[in-house]
Amino acid sequence: MSSIDATTKDPADAAVVVPTTIHVCITCRRPTDPDTFPRPGALLARATATAAVGANIAVRRVRCLANCNRGLSAAISCERRWTYVFGDLEATRDAVALIEGARLLAAADDGVMPWRNRPEALKRGLIARVPPFDHEEVDPDAAAKESP
Amino acid sequence: MSSIDATTKDPADAAVVVPTTIHVCITCRRPTDPDTFPRPGALLARATATAAVGANIAVRRVRCLANCNRGLSAAISCERRWTYVFGDLEATRDAVALIEGARLLAAADDGVMPWRNRPEALKRGLIARVPPFDHEEVDPDAAAKESP
Repeated sequence: MSSIDATTKDPADAAVVVPTTIHVCITCRRPTDPDTFPRPGALLARATATAAVGANIAVRRVRCLANCNRGLSAAISCERRWTYVFGDLEATRDAVALIEGARLLAAADDGVMPWRNRPEALKRGLIARVPPFDHEEVDPDAAAKESP
Repeated sequence: MSSIDATTKDPADAAVVVPTTIHVCITCRRPTDPDTFPRPGALLARATATAAVGANIAVRRVRCLANCNRGLSAAISCERRWTYVFGDLEATRDAVALIEGARLLAAADDGVMPWRNRPEALKRGLIARVPPFDHEEVDPDAAAKESP
């Protein structure tokens, strides 16, 4: 057996295997932030890129996720999974939360980021989620409830 | 020349050619709505499906886009384009607006739904937008502004 035992390695430290991207809005600032550069959003993007080292998670800088009233903002996307938009993020606090969220989503075979173990910032700051492009729900119960 | 002249046909009536999906939340209701079925969100889904006939736009019913404070909610997705989440929609008013928004997005070669000509409900009700999975911005100006 090698000196590194994969079975005992903390899964939170493992690189994700599903293509995963965090888009961080670099134009974001809160109404109370000064109108100066770098924007707090750009600082969050930088901190997230640092936190992502070794995790196999792409961190990409974007200009505006249209969540300007509740910045700072970031979106977590994984192939074949729901995409999540978060707001009310803090540049100096939430980079690691974004990486943890990305890991949770990448590991979620049902495509949904679990609530349990989700970092607090990604619970309070949830703005919206969008299903995969081809997502189609089969839900006879809902159909029954809708009957007049 | 045929009796139908394609050059004079209103583009708003043409079927879209880029795969396009509108996901409508069927669990949505506003805080002031009664706790009854069908939910207003389900009615919006039904109206949107009707408005989509002939447009080559898929309308899919989903349970929760996590925009519960600003329902009714829907998301418009097109291949190789940004995805848009809208809220504050009205079941009896905004189905056609969603179809118009989907047409605008499908026709947008730069991947961004234009603000001009966007239905008013999709301006006021914009909740967030998410770039395509592989989206990467090249923006030297932004980089310059960020220099300390």
